[in-house]
Amino acid sequence: VALKQQRIELARVPRGIPVEEDFRLVEAEVPEPAEGQFLGRVVYLSLDPYLRSAIAGRHPGHDACRPGDLVPGRAVAEVVRSRHPALSSGDFVLVASGWQEYCLSDGAGVRRIEEEGAPLSAYLGVLGMPGLTAWAGVTQLLRPRAAETVVVSAATGPVGGTAGQIAKRLGCRVVGIAGSAAKCAHAVAEFAFDACVNHKEQGFRAELAAACPDRIAAYFDNVGGAVLEAVISELGLNGRIALCGLIDQYNTGVPYALPLAPVIAKRARLMGLVVYDYESRYAEFLGQALGWLREGRLRYLEDRAQGLAAAPLAFRRLMSGQNFGKSLVVVGEERRLE
Amino acid sequence: VALKQQRIELARVPRGIPVEEDFRLVEAEVPEPAEGQFLGRVVYLSLDPYLRSAIAGRHPGHDACRPGDLVPGRAVAEVVRSRHPALSSGDFVLVASGWQEYCLSDGAGVRRIEEEGAPLSAYLGVLGMPGLTAWAGVTQLLRPRAAETVVVSAATGPVGGTAGQIAKRLGCRVVGIAGSAAKCAHAVAEFAFDACVNHKEQGFRAELAAACPDRIAAYFDNVGGAVLEAVISELGLNGRIALCGLIDQYNTGVPYALPLAPVIAKRARLMGLVVYDYESRYAEFLGQALGWLREGRLRYLEDRAQGLAAAPLAFRRLMSGQNFGKSLVVVGEERRLE
Repeated sequence: VALKQQRIELARVPRGIPVEEDFRLVEAEVPEPAEGQFLGRVVYLSLDPYLRSAIAGRHPGHDACRPGDLVPGRAVAEVVRSRHPALSSGDFVLVASGWQEYCLSDGAGVRRIEEEGAPLSAYLGVLGMPGLTAWAGVTQLLRPRAAETVVVSAATGPVGGTAGQIAKRLGCRVVGIAGSAAKCAHAVAEFAFDACVNHKEQGFRAELAAACPDRIAAYFDNVGGAVLEAVISELGLNGRIALCGLIDQYNTGVPYALPLAPVIAKRARLMGLVVYDYESRYAEFLGQALGWLREGRLRYLEDRAQGLAAAPLAFRRLMSGQNFGKSLVVVGEERRLE
Repeated sequence: VALKQQRIELARVPRGIPVEEDFRLVEAEVPEPAEGQFLGRVVYLSLDPYLRSAIAGRHPGHDACRPGDLVPGRAVAEVVRSRHPALSSGDFVLVASGWQEYCLSDGAGVRRIEEEGAPLSAYLGVLGMPGLTAWAGVTQLLRPRAAETVVVSAATGPVGGTAGQIAKRLGCRVVGIAGSAAKCAHAVAEFAFDACVNHKEQGFRAELAAACPDRIAAYFDNVGGAVLEAVISELGLNGRIALCGLIDQYNTGVPYALPLAPVIAKRARLMGLVVYDYESRYAEFLGQALGWLREGRLRYLEDRAQGLAAAPLAFRRLMSGQNFGKSLVVVGEERRLE
């Protein structure tokens, strides 16, 4: 008899911030790998803001999801049956699994996790795509010099938190922006940011100005919108901005547009950042990040949901800014082969 | 008896594109210079899009004009009476004269025109602030490499026309954007642009794409709005954009906002350009530009109005895109001392 698994389909097309009713947990068979394929057992499912755009068909490489479609997503999975020439049972991989317990793959876009000495879940965050995004934005685009003021938004998220810590290592003054007092306290206490201001507070603009007495030299933007506009108003002349995310737009689909006159007046330099451009630099990044991680000089925070069924609620929390750290779902047991 | 002159005051605060009724020609006395001042006789009055913002109080260094105020503007003037230590009768200067026949100045912000061998009016255009703007945007910000496709808007204006010709000298493929078939024909025939497309035509986007088969590597933007958005849609990955002007916004005061998702998707680099940052490079620029001009390798086009009274109509034509080349008013006779 075929093994059964759980998977999550789209129940209806989400409007705005996704809610639990937009998703449906169903039972399905665990498939058998054909020649050239492997079967992966999902351990950690990654929840990322870009998935909201992917579901809507607004992310490169993703068709819009229709009701009944498997919800897309990437995961750390264990290879449990392999007819793939390069992968064996017991290997751990990063794979576009979708929201399910078991996935088939032909290996396209799959990365084997070869390095030891770091938790597997870190490969979804600080050692994975978000970490590479942060590294690329800071070291390849913003290139801050020591003593410059660098601002990062989504400061406790895996991109913002890592970006800020890398800027700290370069000798910068780092000011975070986050959506709660607890997040701000964490960025200062755990990530050693020099300051962190809450953009949901009335006095946000004044606090941002006070935290940046030398004005802002570089900004790693993960959100767009009013936060981006506030940062530009505090930007020093010739300030640099890495444009990396537009979280409100992901929910609403309403294109966010930035007033340009202040950009000209500040002689700002805006640089679009897409992490896929830096995949060839992954090994270089990973070597550095693993070193920092092992030395305890690169910290991260996870917001874990337990069990596949918890994914829709966790996704809603992520897309409304209620997550506290990298959002992931523990789908299966981590029984790493030692 | 005191000499009389004509001057133009603001009659009422313009709304949108200024019209003749927003201005009033009045008679005034020609003033006497005090110690440290000189009296200038305006020869060529420059009309520039930024004046629309200056009148509205939206340009740095300018308070809003109220009815009865002299309309601001810069000019080439001849010093006709001097109590200024560094200027003598017969000198020609660039001076913030306002719209009048004679102006007083204490020399602040005044530049003496020392070089021979070029028409005086060129110092308002290709050899002046517009030319320096073009030079800075191309050589300091966009830095195009040979064979790259460079696009310039307002292609027959003094900034766009000069920017495109400088890019041609760097070996680039240059594609202009202008607002009429005649302007486009001029950019190709006189400025040697490789192509020029009319943004007021239905098929603009398709023609722009056809003119840029290798996509756009660099764009010198003088207008913002729909033209900027069309260029971004044809931009190659990592394309650079110098943001220099927002002509629609100057009229309306409605802040123009640029959708950011395409900027990120193209990994575009947007750079705000303010010419005042490059004043210290003026001598370097002027030396190059004079050389090119004398060799016939840098061309320009002037849209001349005759007499101060013609300034309001000429300004309306400029702000509605009906000018054909650098807009200026011949206020007085050019009787250069030889």
